[in-house]
Amino acid sequence: MILVPFDARRPKTRLADVLDADERRAFADAMLRDVVSAARAADHEVRVLATAPVAGLSVPVDVDDRPLTPAVNDVLADADGVDPVAVLTADLPLVDGPTVERLLAAAAPETVVIAPGLGGGTNALVVGHPAFRADYHGVSVRDHRAAARSVGATVREVDSRRLATDVDDPGDLAEVLIHAPESRAGRWLADAGFGVHGDDGRAAAGR
Amino acid sequence: MILVPFDARRPKTRLADVLDADERRAFADAMLRDVVSAARAADHEVRVLATAPVAGLSVPVDVDDRPLTPAVNDVLADADGVDPVAVLTADLPLVDGPTVERLLAAAAPETVVIAPGLGGGTNALVVGHPAFRADYHGVSVRDHRAAARSVGATVREVDSRRLATDVDDPGDLAEVLIHAPESRAGRWLADAGFGVHGDDGRAAAGR
Repeated sequence: MILVPFDARRPKTRLADVLDADERRAFADAMLRDVVSAARAADHEVRVLATAPVAGLSVPVDVDDRPLTPAVNDVLADADGVDPVAVLTADLPLVDGPTVERLLAAAAPETVVIAPGLGGGTNALVVGHPAFRADYHGVSVRDHRAAARSVGATVREVDSRRLATDVDDPGDLAEVLIHAPESRAGRWLADAGFGVHGDDGRAAAGR
Repeated sequence: MILVPFDARRPKTRLADVLDADERRAFADAMLRDVVSAARAADHEVRVLATAPVAGLSVPVDVDDRPLTPAVNDVLADADGVDPVAVLTADLPLVDGPTVERLLAAAAPETVVIAPGLGGGTNALVVGHPAFRADYHGVSVRDHRAAARSVGATVREVDSRRLATDVDDPGDLAEVLIHAPESRAGRWLADAGFGVHGDDGRAAAGR
């Protein structure tokens, strides 16, 4: 099962300098749909775990208004410990079906697969150990490595730029336009007037 | 053959806010040695292409004081067009031997393999087409895709966070400490007093 947690209430507050609240909700919704499409392409059961109802998705939506960590951990606790549970962040518009396949191919019994995000985050987990619990605060990739080892699980990391590129800060928008222009999120940014501005440093997106 | 271009004169100027000129040279040298070690682990011929002599490396150093693009393109022009030439940036301390193997495994005749960097850059190329030339200015990953297609080459992209993480800006230093603490670059940063500071955004490195 692939679980996609989603903040349906106040998503993407760190984009407030470049997008207003309605735009942030629309952009976050586009990214969620990109991730759901990628997960469905991988032909697994997909469920969205949202803090409020989300309309118009092609997959079931479970509403849980608690913070990310306890909401995800309840799902992990309910899992049978045999079939791995993948937890895939909803702000990964560069992820496509083959990327999700690569993530799931790393799953194994008694193993926790980690796809690190930029800046020490955890953008995907595939939990194949019944005692592992997530903790998304702080430098979570280090905490998840330690938590997996503390329950006796093997740790595997998936080395993927597409999985690592969560879109949180204005500096991330260029990645969407450069590497996923045909995604819903990429088309939303283009329609909103964003383009890529390159110099000899890293490219930035602006309108 | 794996070519590692290196600016031996004024490396890493964008780190000037956190490292002085001597520190930037020492840190750049540590990263170069990490990349050379990773490339040697992949068991291919490795050459460094530097703008000035570099002492103490275990591989040949060719000195060419021109900018990156013409210096690399002369090597591509001299290649026989049969054996692919890999061009691997010198500021990738997260790259290890298996990552280089994965890059080289994507090589094929009439194919240009691209490993994108963050912000539209190109951190690695594996050039298997005799007519392809590099251009490292601007949003080079888009230019390299177009240049490959314009000579009739197939484009393949390698999806690797480790290859994507070039260390240019102060914000990149945390990646080294989190994901490559045992590299020469990671140990250099720790010895220089840098540590990771996490909050609920992306982690940062500071001292």
